[in-house]
Amino acid sequence: MGESKSGGAKTAGSQSFYAVIPAGGSGTRLWPLSRSQEPKFLLDLLGTGNSLLVDTVKRLAPFANVDEIMVVTGEAHEKLVRTQVPALPLANVLVEPSPKNSAAAVGLAAYVLAESFPDAVVGFFAADHVVSDDDAFHSVLATAIEAAKSGHLVTIGISPTEPSSAFGYIKKGKANDLSGVFHVQEFVEKPSFKDAERFVASGNYFWNAGIFVGTVQAIVDSFDKFSPALGTPLRDIAKRLLAGDDFSELWSELPSQAFDYAVAEPAAADGRFLVVPGSFGWRDVGDFASLAQAQGGAAGSEVTVVGDAAKVHPRDSTGIVVATSGRIITLLGVHDIVVVDTPDALLVTTKEHAQDVKQVVEQMRAEGLDGVL
Amino acid sequence: MGESKSGGAKTAGSQSFYAVIPAGGSGTRLWPLSRSQEPKFLLDLLGTGNSLLVDTVKRLAPFANVDEIMVVTGEAHEKLVRTQVPALPLANVLVEPSPKNSAAAVGLAAYVLAESFPDAVVGFFAADHVVSDDDAFHSVLATAIEAAKSGHLVTIGISPTEPSSAFGYIKKGKANDLSGVFHVQEFVEKPSFKDAERFVASGNYFWNAGIFVGTVQAIVDSFDKFSPALGTPLRDIAKRLLAGDDFSELWSELPSQAFDYAVAEPAAADGRFLVVPGSFGWRDVGDFASLAQAQGGAAGSEVTVVGDAAKVHPRDSTGIVVATSGRIITLLGVHDIVVVDTPDALLVTTKEHAQDVKQVVEQMRAEGLDGVL
Repeated sequence: MGESKSGGAKTAGSQSFYAVIPAGGSGTRLWPLSRSQEPKFLLDLLGTGNSLLVDTVKRLAPFANVDEIMVVTGEAHEKLVRTQVPALPLANVLVEPSPKNSAAAVGLAAYVLAESFPDAVVGFFAADHVVSDDDAFHSVLATAIEAAKSGHLVTIGISPTEPSSAFGYIKKGKANDLSGVFHVQEFVEKPSFKDAERFVASGNYFWNAGIFVGTVQAIVDSFDKFSPALGTPLRDIAKRLLAGDDFSELWSELPSQAFDYAVAEPAAADGRFLVVPGSFGWRDVGDFASLAQAQGGAAGSEVTVVGDAAKVHPRDSTGIVVATSGRIITLLGVHDIVVVDTPDALLVTTKEHAQDVKQVVEQMRAEGLDGVL
Repeated sequence: MGESKSGGAKTAGSQSFYAVIPAGGSGTRLWPLSRSQEPKFLLDLLGTGNSLLVDTVKRLAPFANVDEIMVVTGEAHEKLVRTQVPALPLANVLVEPSPKNSAAAVGLAAYVLAESFPDAVVGFFAADHVVSDDDAFHSVLATAIEAAKSGHLVTIGISPTEPSSAFGYIKKGKANDLSGVFHVQEFVEKPSFKDAERFVASGNYFWNAGIFVGTVQAIVDSFDKFSPALGTPLRDIAKRLLAGDDFSELWSELPSQAFDYAVAEPAAADGRFLVVPGSFGWRDVGDFASLAQAQGGAAGSEVTVVGDAAKVHPRDSTGIVVATSGRIITLLGVHDIVVVDTPDALLVTTKEHAQDVKQVVEQMRAEGLDGVL
């Protein structure tokens, strides 16, 4: 890791800031666009010219140079991560020997930083989210970093734009001394649609995008206190990793838990979590229906094309076409259709079934079709 | 052309029998399976291992050896016709310099035969129809050939299995002396669905499959009498063709007319046409809905696959998938869907829109996409 800031419009103040990007998850609901070997975060999903990972790195530039960014990823993706972000120092890619869910990924980075930069502030940012208003994001993040210096963990809560049951929620509690900052009353798992409607109407709930900031010390303290089954071995694993020793056996024995469950929920109950609400055009493009929406296609309107639009010939049709095979694609009289045309696999479904793609992929895996998954 | 029969279970009697297969039409409604360069009749549409043309040739074997078969086709298809039916003598492929509709194709063969075999009986059989009961077909054809020896033209009328508005109809008149043979009262163009219901309920109408038999003399007489604008130049064209002279200019000036309109309708009105009704599992697989039906897929039932079924993974879906690209095809929650997946073009539509594929292809041609049409 780099050991010093090198210019730029840094707003994190005098304390060192590091950004960690857990880059896991396969984006199964976006198959066959997203594959296990080239998942969502490595794809130029929105046609910006960059993958979501590269967009994430660029978005953090006012706060962290590339040598102040760590990516936690799986062995299968290390090579493409390094190819896409060539300036990333060798030591800044932490490779998980096997997937162990988000708590292990967060904890690994936190304990590695605790060894090297114990006084730093660190933020965690998903590799595969979309932000359309970078300035607003930067403003909210600056507030979160400032708030984190008090020793609290600080999450960024997304002001909901609809009653979605696809996200967890953060319920705000009493106001903090800092303007625009609140205590977290609780983290709530993905609710029913009905509960989501109630949450949104109340004005007291935010979407949990998994973005949070804290001092390295506060984060490892929370692991030690609320999840010693992870914290204890992770401290050892971090030391081995930095020494260049093998840690795969210790890693394989880690419990596989979500960070929210293992650390965030008990830490919030202990009064350790703050939330900074924000609106910055955040999206988790998790399935083809949300991809169509992110590409500007309103429900029931024309056909949204991701890829080579000149090859797509819709007639009396609506939906989304992902065209990456180079073939001519003709649609006739199909509505809210999803056609994902890649060189070796084709998916035809409807927006209504966008969430069910995950189950189909799991079924195909069970049938031994790993080669195209 | 061959000049003598060579064994086999011939049932045509002592008079020579020739079979003519007009092999035109592009099967546009079956795009992108059927292409202008490789139309329906050259495809193994039903997975029998043979193209429809080759199946047609084989079906005629008890009546005509390959050297007693003539194929009338366009320049673009001559090579594949010869490749698929290698035993066809050089002179037995009549190549049209340009498409001129069915009357010119039928007349060309008739006037060529009139020069070479004026005493023969000749039958005309579409290159792209499907027959599932060959024995029944042979029995009906033997009756038609017998009836033709009286000097009448004899069509084979398909006993309708449903009130289809996709076919022309033949109305039967009074019985002929031969058992199972009737006079044709009139040929009726494709009716409305309502009229089709009436036709089928009456029991007096048959589908017009364009199959007919006659002496060479009777056919050219009818051209001379009812369509001299075709007959006169075609006599000249046939002579030039047999002499190896160019006839493309004369051909280009021929009127482009359907045989039914130019000859059959007036000949029937003149009392010259007989009909032999038959049921032999005849199908004109004209679009993807009828292809699904021919492949055994009932409406609303599972997914019918043409091609590599092992590559197709339907879930909660119904319809037809044509899989010729070798790719994995996954369907999820789509119903009565039509997916035609070829190496360079993909069509997604529904059975309901099967007939409209023709219009889409015409639109794409207007847009300059001939390369994939």
